[in-house]
Amino acid sequence: MKVSVFRKERFNAAHRLNNPAWDSETNRRIFGKCNNPNFHGHNYDLIVEVCGEIDPDTGYVIDMKILSDIIQEEVIQRYDHRNLNLDVEDFQDNNPTAENIVITIWNKIRNRLSDRYELTVRLYETEKNFVEFSGG
Amino acid sequence: MKVSVFRKERFNAAHRLNNPAWDSETNRRIFGKCNNPNFHGHNYDLIVEVCGEIDPDTGYVIDMKILSDIIQEEVIQRYDHRNLNLDVEDFQDNNPTAENIVITIWNKIRNRLSDRYELTVRLYETEKNFVEFSGG
Amino acid sequence: MKVSVFRKERFNAAHRLNNPAWDSETNRRIFGKCNNPNFHGHNYDLIVEVCGEIDPDTGYVIDMKILSDIIQEEVIQRYDHRNLNLDVEDFQDNNPTAENIVITIWNKIRNRLSDRYELTVRLYETEKNFVEFSGG
Amino acid sequence: MKVSVFRKERFNAAHRLNNPAWDSETNRRIFGKCNNPNFHGHNYDLIVEVCGEIDPDTGYVIDMKILSDIIQEEVIQRYDHRNLNLDVEDFQDNNPTAENIVITIWNKIRNRLSDRYELTVRLYETEKNFVEFSGG
Amino acid sequence: MKVSVFRKERFNAAHRLNNPAWDSETNRRIFGKCNNPNFHGHNYDLIVEVCGEIDPDTGYVIDMKILSDIIQEEVIQRYDHRNLNLDVEDFQDNNPTAENIVITIWNKIRNRLSDRYELTVRLYETEKNFVEFSGG
Amino acid sequence: MKVSVFRKERFNAAHRLNNPAWDSETNRRIFGKCNNPNFHGHNYDLIVEVCGEIDPDTGYVIDMKILSDIIQEEVIQRYDHRNLNLDVEDFQDNNPTAENIVITIWNKIRNRLSDRYELTVRLYETEKNFVEFSGG
Repeated sequence: MKVSVFRKERFNAAHRLNNPAWDSETNRRIFGKCNNPNFHGHNYDLIVEVCGEIDPDTGYVIDMKILSDIIQEEVIQRYDHRNLNLDVEDFQDNNPTAENIVITIWNKIRNRLSDRYELTVRLYETEKNFVEFSGG
Repeated sequence: MKVSVFRKERFNAAHRLNNPAWDSETNRRIFGKCNNPNFHGHNYDLIVEVCGEIDPDTGYVIDMKILSDIIQEEVIQRYDHRNLNLDVEDFQDNNPTAENIVITIWNKIRNRLSDRYELTVRLYETEKNFVEFSGG
Repeated sequence: MKVSVFRKERFNAAHRLNNPAWDSETNRRIFGKCNNPNFHGHNYDLIVEVCGEIDPDTGYVIDMKILSDIIQEEVIQRYDHRNLNLDVEDFQDNNPTAENIVITIWNKIRNRLSDRYELTVRLYETEKNFVEFSGG
Repeated sequence: MKVSVFRKERFNAAHRLNNPAWDSETNRRIFGKCNNPNFHGHNYDLIVEVCGEIDPDTGYVIDMKILSDIIQEEVIQRYDHRNLNLDVEDFQDNNPTAENIVITIWNKIRNRLSDRYELTVRLYETEKNFVEFSGG
Repeated sequence: MKVSVFRKERFNAAHRLNNPAWDSETNRRIFGKCNNPNFHGHNYDLIVEVCGEIDPDTGYVIDMKILSDIIQEEVIQRYDHRNLNLDVEDFQDNNPTAENIVITIWNKIRNRLSDRYELTVRLYETEKNFVEFSGG
Repeated sequence: MKVSVFRKERFNAAHRLNNPAWDSETNRRIFGKCNNPNFHGHNYDLIVEVCGEIDPDTGYVIDMKILSDIIQEEVIQRYDHRNLNLDVEDFQDNNPTAENIVITIWNKIRNRLSDRYELTVRLYETEKNFVEFSGG
């Protein structure tokens, strides 16, 4: 019997959308105000869903403390109060759209989880714009 | 690799639940206070989920500005600050329950989206009552 | 030692903004889409704040059950799933703007409370538009 | 054409996580502060999702009043303002983790629903920790 | 020029409302289901407002890290995952109504703040029931 | 009879806390991760409260469309998707703490409002950290 457990965490970061293969005018046209060369920023809300069997001894799918620690180590300590474009290696050659961020986070957490779990990650850039990835 | 992107919009509308094939007493019994002939109303929250491949040039599944424009044109401009029963052709012969509204909205947005996208629409009538449709 | 206690309740209603002393064009110009003759509607959130001394026997400023009952009887049972303009006597000659609604609610609850309490009422028409009245 | 309808309800309860097969030290190590023998508590938010065909007469998948009554009778009246470990038979021999609570609630509501409906239950223990069960 | 700064924290606790000077029947009549001898619980949301002059060097009224540490030490570490009646000395002889809890918290934080600050504390027992104290 | 009306708007921006009169080490010690030279960012929520008499003709304290336009022109168009330190003149010589931002916004809106109104501005930097200014 599989149950999903969800853990919500947050980080605050600056970013800029830009495709280095395009000229400035094309970048401005496609990305609009998100292309501002001086960056803008968001309070990102992150919801990590792990689906698996309940351990009969603990009554847990996964200990939320362990899941929270993984999210802290893989995501929050690297992204929080950072500039995603300048400070985070993951986005040196990867445009930090919400879609690219959520896939990156999914991969980092996937590497830390046992294969017996399914993983879905949801990322809120704002209350009105958010994305979700389950591995493709 | 498919990612879901979500866009949230809002509209405020009046409506009344009524089945013209039934007499008044049956309508009152089935629909209760929602059958009030003078209407009541809601702040509807709408979440449109589009699932598809990421465009490698933009890092977007779909430009949120384009998705927002489609929702504005198809839904918000037609439903916002309207009486769904009296002002909106979609509900002339279609009882505006949350279920019927969400299917109607799904069809309108589906017609505007490329076949390469999957579509799910969620509609909140109140914080406690909401519905979701993915095409059946 | 005075403490404020707050109770949140909700009602869903239709309304229309209109000044009968004006012609239709003026009403449309001033009230815009809120002047729709067929009405629109909202999920109204109501927060009633009562400030007073703590009763040493109960540890309560006021029993929340009693406060909730007053709000139910004075407001929710009269306004919920109603058309404020057509169904509610309070707005027969009183344009149901959020400002006029909140003053009306304040007066109704004030009449039910002992003089030893101060009263403030906040009314959310939407998440973005809300009003508050403390007695003037 | 299947639509999902969701109903949100709430209950407030005390609980304690403990495995009687383990000694106190193991329980403290595994469950941490959730093992407090004097209990702690939560405001639980419960979202019940029922998926099925729309009834063409009513425009409803299920009457929300009926669904709400089922949730009240099966869950709220039994769990609200209770100690899950001491007052609720369901958890006499079942550690009241969010995972075990959500499966228990799912079974209770499943027994009250027609087979033509699919059922999913989500339970928020806090805003940051929540679980979901769809039947396994 | 005085500015208010607000810091939100949370704790989860069990409690029971009871006046030991009354018999069981009176306690049940007055406190209803909150009198359950086996306790119930809440996710308490706490908002601490500190009002004062801005320090021209930092641009802060008070360093939020310092304010958060005070709240952690005075409130969260003592109340979180505890039974307020059994585990917390503050409520040994003080009925843990929201009103009495908020005054107790206000006094604890007041003792840690410089006199140049004004202090207001708001405590949410649920989304629908909350209280606020500013010193009386 | 004075009523308060509130309008909520949002902007997303990058910023960095820094005092140019201090050396780098002092700035890092005082401002911590908020001192990151490459900036971080937030979704700022802004609530503007205007208190005044109700106009008997409209039933409005102030037309929310006019208030929203003022906030758009004075704040959103200048701050949204900008770097507060680099792109916004207001913070060239003014450390963009939440406290300094809220006073700056208050002054800009105050200049656009008639003297018959009182003004309060609340700014949420995150859900846990926010500030409010009423003119000092």
